[in-house]
Amino acid sequence: MTELEKIKYKPVSVREVLTEMKNLSELMIDLAYSSALFNNVELAREVMELEKHMDTLSYLLNINAMIAARDAEDAERLVGISKVANATDKISDAAADIANLVLLGIGIHPLVSKAFQKMEERLVKVMVSPDSEIKNKRIEELDLAARIGVDIIAIRRGNKWIIDPKEEEMICEDDVIFARGASKGVKKFKRMAERRSRKV
Amino acid sequence: MTELEKIKYKPVSVREVLTEMKNLSELMIDLAYSSALFNNVELAREVMELEKHMDTLSYLLNINAMIAARDAEDAERLVGISKVANATDKISDAAADIANLVLLGIGIHPLVSKAFQKMEERLVKVMVSPDSEIKNKRIEELDLAARIGVDIIAIRRGNKWIIDPKEEEMICEDDVIFARGASKGVKKFKRMAERRSRKV
Repeated sequence: MTELEKIKYKPVSVREVLTEMKNLSELMIDLAYSSALFNNVELAREVMELEKHMDTLSYLLNINAMIAARDAEDAERLVGISKVANATDKISDAAADIANLVLLGIGIHPLVSKAFQKMEERLVKVMVSPDSEIKNKRIEELDLAARIGVDIIAIRRGNKWIIDPKEEEMICEDDVIFARGASKGVKKFKRMAERRSRKV
Repeated sequence: MTELEKIKYKPVSVREVLTEMKNLSELMIDLAYSSALFNNVELAREVMELEKHMDTLSYLLNINAMIAARDAEDAERLVGISKVANATDKISDAAADIANLVLLGIGIHPLVSKAFQKMEERLVKVMVSPDSEIKNKRIEELDLAARIGVDIIAIRRGNKWIIDPKEEEMICEDDVIFARGASKGVKKFKRMAERRSRKV
């Protein structure tokens, strides 16, 4: 069991919380596999933190769904939402389980990383070189998702972690970037981060 | 609880089973969200079938992992594998939960589909038109993953479902294709399936 964040009840949009939970659960799976693949204990810790946040979201959603239910019809609809929310919560638990293996130091067995081979083509960890073409650019400028189908899921900048960075985040020299995407895209992204290319 | 497939013990490669479980769990999540998004009961049923298969894989993996453990060191390694396998199993449970909502007829609430909006950009359902450029082509010929970052996750051909089709599968007229990928890629794929384009 993870500890819950300290929370107070607040009225929230059930839909927005559900969207956040769904997106967060997917992000957590990719981060958890990344932590296992690159044997990164810090990233595993970030996953455990997100898991706490997920529990908070789940709590907020369930409370607000109950308050929103005024009659049987409402309640029927809201049960569906709460079920989907629980499913995303279960996915995030699975992510935390994988991250926990890394924290326990048992997630790096060659057999496991072999099984992750296909995953390896989808996930990449790369350091931004001094003459990289992506240095000092905002994520929105790079437009990676549309151009090469790659998403940046986390950045380590010195001791600081930026999980699921915003579009306006600037990429800096020496940033360690964790990204996901189709295999061709992530290979291309690795090249972009590591050296200047003449043609983009 | 889903019923287990009838299984006999057989020696299998723990690594191969783990790889299959990991890939299957991801496929199931996408299929489950697709079934909810397109309110497709048949697809939801396919997810429930895959869940049974997942339980079988989990059983085979655990038995084979136990047999493989001859000493403490072996056992320690194998615990890690079995934990990752359990995590993929949990993910597939969550997928089955979502599919089950569709089977119960409560997965289609507008609030939920709004929350899936971002997902909608990643998942697509499209029917292959008579003059489509992808008709009568094998999946490997189309090379969708490398060219536009799109994966075909299921095909409905008349009453038959082909889940996670192989590379040599031929695309036919009137096939209903479920695919996943980056938003730009899936839009492009939709155009390719629906009409002939002059330029690929």
